[in-house]
Amino acid sequence: MAAQNNKNDAITGRDVDFAQWYTDVCRKAELMDYSSVKGFINYLPYSYAIWEEIQAFLNKKFKAAGAENVYLPMVIPSSLFNKEKEHIEGFAPETLVATIGGGQELADPLIIRPTSEVLFSDMYKRLVSSYRDLPKCYNQWCSVVRWEKTTRPFLRGSEFLWQEGHCLFETEEEARKNALDILEAYDALGRDLLAIPFVKGIKTEKEKFAGAVATYSIEALMHDGKALQSGTTHYLGQGFADAFGIRFLGRQNAQEIPHQTSWGVSTRLLGAIIMVHGDDNGLVLPPYVAPIQVVIVPIRQDAEGVLEKAKEIESKLDAMGIRVKLDDSARTPGWKFAQWEMKGVPLRIEVGPRDLANNSVTLVKRVNGEKKTAPIEEIEASIPSVLAEIHQDMYNKAKAHLDANVTEVHNVEELKAVLEKGGYAKMMWCGDEGCENKVKEITAGGTARCMPFDEEPFGDVCPICGKKATRVVYFAKAY
Amino acid sequence: MAAQNNKNDAITGRDVDFAQWYTDVCRKAELMDYSSVKGFINYLPYSYAIWEEIQAFLNKKFKAAGAENVYLPMVIPSSLFNKEKEHIEGFAPETLVATIGGGQELADPLIIRPTSEVLFSDMYKRLVSSYRDLPKCYNQWCSVVRWEKTTRPFLRGSEFLWQEGHCLFETEEEARKNALDILEAYDALGRDLLAIPFVKGIKTEKEKFAGAVATYSIEALMHDGKALQSGTTHYLGQGFADAFGIRFLGRQNAQEIPHQTSWGVSTRLLGAIIMVHGDDNGLVLPPYVAPIQVVIVPIRQDAEGVLEKAKEIESKLDAMGIRVKLDDSARTPGWKFAQWEMKGVPLRIEVGPRDLANNSVTLVKRVNGEKKTAPIEEIEASIPSVLAEIHQDMYNKAKAHLDANVTEVHNVEELKAVLEKGGYAKMMWCGDEGCENKVKEITAGGTARCMPFDEEPFGDVCPICGKKATRVVYFAKAY
Repeated sequence: MAAQNNKNDAITGRDVDFAQWYTDVCRKAELMDYSSVKGFINYLPYSYAIWEEIQAFLNKKFKAAGAENVYLPMVIPSSLFNKEKEHIEGFAPETLVATIGGGQELADPLIIRPTSEVLFSDMYKRLVSSYRDLPKCYNQWCSVVRWEKTTRPFLRGSEFLWQEGHCLFETEEEARKNALDILEAYDALGRDLLAIPFVKGIKTEKEKFAGAVATYSIEALMHDGKALQSGTTHYLGQGFADAFGIRFLGRQNAQEIPHQTSWGVSTRLLGAIIMVHGDDNGLVLPPYVAPIQVVIVPIRQDAEGVLEKAKEIESKLDAMGIRVKLDDSARTPGWKFAQWEMKGVPLRIEVGPRDLANNSVTLVKRVNGEKKTAPIEEIEASIPSVLAEIHQDMYNKAKAHLDANVTEVHNVEELKAVLEKGGYAKMMWCGDEGCENKVKEITAGGTARCMPFDEEPFGDVCPICGKKATRVVYFAKAY
Repeated sequence: MAAQNNKNDAITGRDVDFAQWYTDVCRKAELMDYSSVKGFINYLPYSYAIWEEIQAFLNKKFKAAGAENVYLPMVIPSSLFNKEKEHIEGFAPETLVATIGGGQELADPLIIRPTSEVLFSDMYKRLVSSYRDLPKCYNQWCSVVRWEKTTRPFLRGSEFLWQEGHCLFETEEEARKNALDILEAYDALGRDLLAIPFVKGIKTEKEKFAGAVATYSIEALMHDGKALQSGTTHYLGQGFADAFGIRFLGRQNAQEIPHQTSWGVSTRLLGAIIMVHGDDNGLVLPPYVAPIQVVIVPIRQDAEGVLEKAKEIESKLDAMGIRVKLDDSARTPGWKFAQWEMKGVPLRIEVGPRDLANNSVTLVKRVNGEKKTAPIEEIEASIPSVLAEIHQDMYNKAKAHLDANVTEVHNVEELKAVLEKGGYAKMMWCGDEGCENKVKEITAGGTARCMPFDEEPFGDVCPICGKKATRVVYFAKAY
C-alpha cells in the first residue's frame, strides 16, 4: 500500500477537525454550493450524478418489489395534516407553511410536505375499495422540507431529496414483509452500489417514526465513529388508513382497514459516502456511483504517441459505457494526480513514454494507492474487473472499520468509554424508555440506533437500571 | 382502416364535448387523480411513466448539448426575487408564499419557485469568475408552483413537473445558438418520441417570457384546433446576469457580463399527447413512451396451448426490453379489447386457437385499427418494426391534421373565421403590439403563437391596421 500523504493542503486533516474536513471536501470536490437561501444548498453536478445512480439502482429494486412511481403535490392543507395525531405532533414544529397564494391569504394554510403519508393516505381512500385493489404500492422521488436550525450539507438541511414509498396491503403480514423487503433493498444498495456495510434492525419505541407501529433502519458508521441513519422503513399499522377513512371490501365480504407501510432514503446517503470512504486527500468514491470512474492522466503528454494512446483508451472505455475522463489540460501530472484524488475518482490510468515502450499502462487505485501495470491490449478486459476489485476493497475496508467499532458493554463505565471514543456500544437493555433517556444523559447524546436482527443475548441485566434485559441494542452518537 | 366506434361509453365523444372527453380520458385511463389540495393533481403511474420516458430522452439530448443535472432549492427569498424587475412583475401575481418556518414568522418570506432564473443567477455569481468557467450549463428536473385560479389536468395546474435549463455563455452568439439547439432537441422529442409535429418559431414581444430578450417556442395543435405551447427556450441577454452581479474576466482581461439562456418543457406535454392522438375510444399512446407498448389478449384462453403460447410471446418480448402485458384475467376478449384501447396501448396481439392452427398471431394497431397476421416464429423480429410503423402512422396522422389546419388569412373576416373554426391563422403582421391586442379582442382570445422560422412573406400589409407588414405570424386560440 502506498503512503497516504495529505497532498491537498486545502483540505483539513480528518483527525484535526472532522467537521471541517467534511465541509472542505463538500466544497473543494464541487459537490455542493451554499445557496443564498439560509439552510438550503445547491446540489452540483458532481453530487447530483451520484444521486441519479442511486435512483437507477433503487428504481429496479422497487419495481421488483411491485412499486410504481408517481408524483403527489408538494403541499398539504393544514386541515388534512391534522388528521393523524402522533404524526402531526412529530412534524408540526419543523414545518414551512405557505399562507399567501396569488396575493390572497389562504383560508387553509399549506404545509410544504415534510413527508407524504397524509397525501398518499388521502389518495388511497379514493383509489381503493376492494381487496382486488390491493396491494397498492407507489413511490415518489421528490424533495421535502423540514425547517432546521442547524444544517450541514447532505446530512441535515431544510430541504433534501429523497424517495418515499407508501404501500397498502390486506394483511399485517404482507405489510411487515414489505417493510423488511425494502430494508433488504436498502441494504443491497449499500453492499452492491455504495460499498457501505450497514447495521440493520428495528428502532426502539422512542426512536421510531411519528405514527408508525414499527420502524426499521439501516445505520452506517462514519470514520469519526458516529452513526448515520441512512434509510428507514415503517410498518404503519392501520392508524393512517383509519384516520383517513380507507376501507376495502375484504374476501369475507366485510369492510376492512388495510395495513400500511412507508419507506425512504435521502441525499443523506451522499454524506455517508463522503464520511465512510473519504480520506485526508479528499473524496473516495465507490466505482459504481462515481460520476467519473476512470481518469486518464498522460505523463509527458507532448512525447510521441502518448496523447494518441490516451485518447484511444478513453474512447475504448467510453464505448464500453465506463464513465471516463482524459485530463489533457496543461497542468503537471502531479497536480492532476492530487486534483483527481481529491475528487475521489476510483481509478487512475497513467500513460507515459515508459508505459508505451513496455506496451502497458499504470493503474492506480484511489482507495489504497495500489499500483499495477496492465498490458494495453488487455485494458478493455481488465478495467471492469479492476473496478469490481476496488468496490470490494472499499467495502472490506468499511466493514473492517465497522467490525472494529462494535463493542459489547456490560456496565455504565464501558458504555461511556465506547460512546466517548466513538463506535457502537452493544448493550443488553430492559426495554424501558427511561433507560434510553438515561443513556443519552450520561453519554452526552448517545441514542439507541437500532436493535439488529438475530443478535444473541450476552447477558440478562440492563446495566442502566439493573432490571431484566432481553434485547440487544446498539447505542451510538449519531448525525 | 377499421371502423372506429365508440366502444367505451364512459368516455364522452370528442365532438360532443372536447373538454369533457379530455377529463374522462384523464380519469378513466388512470393518468391522474384530483388531489384534495385544490388545483393540484396526483400523477398516477400511467402518466408518470410517460414522463420518465421523456426525461430519459431529453437527458441524452441535454448531455449532448453540454448540460449537466443539478438541484436547487424550491424556495426563493422575496428579497432575491425582487432583483430583476420585469421578471418579478411577470411572476409575482401567481406566487405561493411561505411566511412561517418552524413556528416563527419569516423576516424574508419565501416564494415557492415559479421558475428558477433567480436562484441559478445567484449561484452562478459564485461559480463563475473567468471565461474559463464558461459555458456553464445546468439543468434541473423539479416541480414549480404557479397559483392558478382555473386548472385542468396536465395543462394548467398550481404545481407542475418540468425541467429548467439555465446556461451562461461568453457571447450572445453562443447563447442564442444554445436557445436554438435546445429548441431543436424539443422538436426532436416531438418527432422521434411523442409523434407530435410542432410549429416552431420565435415569440412576439408581447408573448415572450418575463425578463427575456427573445423567446422561442414549439407549439402543438390539438384535435379541437387549439394550440398548446409545449416548450420554450429563452435568450435572456445580460439582464439577469447584470442584476445579480455575475461578471467574468474575459479573454481581453476586462470584466464582462455573460449572456444567459433558459429553457423548459413540462408535464403539459402529457396533455399534448392526449389531445393530439386520443380518439373517441380513449387514449392513443405513441409507442416509444407508452408504459405498456404491447398487450397480449388470448382468445379462448382455456383452449389448449393458447395461454401457453401467449406467455411464451410475453416472455420473449419482455426479454427484448419491450414493455408488454399479458391480460389473462377472467374478462371476455371484447372487454379486454375496449379496456386496452381506452388505455391507448399501441399494439394488441391476439392469440387464439385459429391463430395457433395457422402458426400465426393477429396484430392490431391502436391508431387506426389496422389488423394483420404475423407468423409466430417471426414475432421477435417483427414487433420492433411494427412499433416503428405505428410511431410513423401516428406522426403522419398528426402532421396531416396540422397541415390541414394552417390557413393563410388576408383580412379580418378570414382571420375571424379561422380562429372560430380552430387551427392556425397565418397572417402578415406589422409588428405592432396594438394589432396583437386587437386580434385577441375581435377573435375572442386568439393570440400570436409564434413566428415560424423561414416563412415566406405572402403579402406586405397588416390586415389589422393596414400598415406595412414584414413578418409571418401564426395566430390561434390556445390552452
